Amino acid sequence: MDAESVIKEVLQQIRPTEEERAFIENLMRELEELAVETIEELGLDVKPYFVGSLAKDTYLAGDHDVDLFLAFPLETPLEELREKGLELGKAMAERLDSYEIAYAEHPYVRARYRGVSVDLVPCYDVKSWKDVRTAVDRSILHTEWVNENIRGKNDEVRLLKRFLKGINAYGSEIYVRGFSGYLAEILVIKYGSFLEVLEKADFILRQKIIDPGNWLKREYETAMNTVKREADEDRPLIVIDPVDPRRNVAANLGWERYGIFYFKAMKFLEEPSTKFFFPEKPRAGNYLDELRRKGTHLVVLAFEKPDLVDDLLLPQLERSARGFEKALEREGFRVFGWDYGYSGDKAFIMLELDRVERERVTIKPGPEFFTERGLDFYRKNERVWVRGKRLYAEKRVKENIVDVISELLEKNQVALGKGIREMIKLADVLADYAPKELEQSAYLFLSREKWNLK
Amino acid sequence: MDAESVIKEVLQQIRPTEEERAFIENLMRELEELAVETIEELGLDVKPYFVGSLAKDTYLAGDHDVDLFLAFPLETPLEELREKGLELGKAMAERLDSYEIAYAEHPYVRARYRGVSVDLVPCYDVKSWKDVRTAVDRSILHTEWVNENIRGKNDEVRLLKRFLKGINAYGSEIYVRGFSGYLAEILVIKYGSFLEVLEKADFILRQKIIDPGNWLKREYETAMNTVKREADEDRPLIVIDPVDPRRNVAANLGWERYGIFYFKAMKFLEEPSTKFFFPEKPRAGNYLDELRRKGTHLVVLAFEKPDLVDDLLLPQLERSARGFEKALEREGFRVFGWDYGYSGDKAFIMLELDRVERERVTIKPGPEFFTERGLDFYRKNERVWVRGKRLYAEKRVKENIVDVISELLEKNQVALGKGIREMIKLADVLADYAPKELEQSAYLFLSREKWNLK
Repeated sequence: MDAESVIKEVLQQIRPTEEERAFIENLMRELEELAVETIEELGLDVKPYFVGSLAKDTYLAGDHDVDLFLAFPLETPLEELREKGLELGKAMAERLDSYEIAYAEHPYVRARYRGVSVDLVPCYDVKSWKDVRTAVDRSILHTEWVNENIRGKNDEVRLLKRFLKGINAYGSEIYVRGFSGYLAEILVIKYGSFLEVLEKADFILRQKIIDPGNWLKREYETAMNTVKREADEDRPLIVIDPVDPRRNVAANLGWERYGIFYFKAMKFLEEPSTKFFFPEKPRAGNYLDELRRKGTHLVVLAFEKPDLVDDLLLPQLERSARGFEKALEREGFRVFGWDYGYSGDKAFIMLELDRVERERVTIKPGPEFFTERGLDFYRKNERVWVRGKRLYAEKRVKENIVDVISELLEKNQVALGKGIREMIKLADVLADYAPKELEQSAYLFLSREKWNLK
Repeated sequence: MDAESVIKEVLQQIRPTEEERAFIENLMRELEELAVETIEELGLDVKPYFVGSLAKDTYLAGDHDVDLFLAFPLETPLEELREKGLELGKAMAERLDSYEIAYAEHPYVRARYRGVSVDLVPCYDVKSWKDVRTAVDRSILHTEWVNENIRGKNDEVRLLKRFLKGINAYGSEIYVRGFSGYLAEILVIKYGSFLEVLEKADFILRQKIIDPGNWLKREYETAMNTVKREADEDRPLIVIDPVDPRRNVAANLGWERYGIFYFKAMKFLEEPSTKFFFPEKPRAGNYLDELRRKGTHLVVLAFEKPDLVDDLLLPQLERSARGFEKALEREGFRVFGWDYGYSGDKAFIMLELDRVERERVTIKPGPEFFTERGLDFYRKNERVWVRGKRLYAEKRVKENIVDVISELLEKNQVALGKGIREMIKLADVLADYAPKELEQSAYLFLSREKWNLK
């Protein structure tokens, strides 16, 4: 199949139908009326703005969460904005189907209406980056900028977003480090089309700096500060936000996800296929066969999934996995890789190791010999020798990985994510065995199919 | 037994008898006459000097090699000194029992006479450190200085030398890094007796600088340069040579040997025994039991002992052992220790490892993904993933340590001592097995009895 046919086929699936559009437009109109009414009733000076992919008409078919921002005048004190904003959101939500309070920089209302999720978010009514006071304030400016510049390329953005989702590089959350929707929009606006962005995967990386707002001319010093700061952080891309020269739109994009995009873009151009947009489920396989093939070993820590949102849970699992890597390397095991995640109500950390049994006697480095502590070390150990200035002795250690891990946890010698420490201490530690519900995760990890670029 | 009784008993064994003294004195007289005669016959302007422990009367009973130095006037060109010096040595040696030519900074004659080894070494007749031109020139000054300062402590020096030999800390050769005879003499002269030196093992290390020639007063700048240079080199001791402020007498003394001296001195003072001077043969043991006890593994490389003197062979063996340590660590084995040496005509390198079999599949780090080489790596490997900026792939590797070592040697991936490289390539590589003649070495190594301070 050529790229054109693939794109045509994909568009049929991701472009909203006329019916869906009509539904959405109606919904937005209704919500806007509700907002205006409620604002009047409460006697507030607030303007409602739709932001996000619905407002920019870059949403994917079936994927239409509403973001309705409630913009207060700049002179409103922050405390008042929080309070009145939440009050307004609640008053509106009372007339919708259901709602809950969600928490970001400040609390907001997440309601449901006609099967759609509706976020009612208080913010400041900013006209320029200089007015920005809270993290969400820029959204209104983003929406305006995209709408002014997109010139009918909306479907191209849809393609790029769906492609990024398909290859697992979409989302700027800290535990993803992929492309945000806004970044996808900017790239399409800058390079003209979905295919152009793919073709420039290498060029974009080399060019490194994208400045669609021309800030390097208009606000040289501020923009250069952003460039320098982000270059120091070694970001793959520096995309100066066209609505705010202080911000790198790609600040959360990691090298890993750019790498995936890089190779998948290349492969798509060589052999276009709808599979990039809608990947098949990964090949199932047997993790025990993988262990036999590789001659390596698996350790699984399985524990009750803590009651935390992904934003909190996943970074803590990652931190803990790294903690185990370090602790086990210190203990003389080689760690070839690790993975983490959850499946149903079971969270897990997996490690691939060179072995699950180690030697019984290892070498303990001691202090310098000519010290009080050296004398102590000399007296306490049966066989002692000097190498360089230091003393060394033998040390008996636990042989089995399960015992080693228990001991490490007991002695608090693993750096663990704070919120999940206690759960991990209660984990089942399994050597060369994965419980039924984690078998597939173990296979994807050990075979590296999870990250395989091919 | 108390220290006094031990010392008395040891002295009986190491102090030369009257008979031995008479023999030595006769021998020296004869050799001196021979020298004077031969010098006259050849019409040379050379003065003979006895140097070394015979000339200083600090030799151990039965251990009496003669060092006869043939001192040429300072104005003699170096080339002439080499030539005439060798000629003179040969002419003298013709009248002794046998001889050969040995090589140091310049060639000299090593003769045998009445069962004693006699070195006939050409040098310059220096009167001061400012005259010193070749490495051996200082010997005459050393002998003079010791004789002027020893004040009858000759037996104390004998005790210290024998003690250092007994604990295996004697000899300033590069492959020993222990105490030289001259250093032992200086320590006794400085601290007054064998026991005083032992008692000050800690103090001496802390004081660090010993300046028996008072150079820090007489030649401040030169002496301070020596102190600074040697401090930068992190030597355990800086003993400014009383005959030359540019030299640290203890330059070749390593921390390891000082460490041995440190603990053995302490132990001797706690529990005096003749064993320190005349150690028993190390306990015999079974190396296979050690492997079972520790759960570790042994690799032996056994090969024909190259025809090199220890001065050359041992450093090269050490270098090669370190080379194997590094190469095997790179390959994922943990190396707990290594040893080298020879037994009869068999040289060996031994390594203690965590295992002799490793996983079949390991992880190969690749280049950064956005490079030509990255593309190449991506194309050449079946499973590829990105971590940070780099690509990684799987790699099949040899499982067995013997195959791993063969492959490393074939591909020249082990840093080996130059003169023994070819021999090592022909070595038998044995896993968890030592040939009969190396069984004892394997035991001493694995049990760490070889270096055990206790």
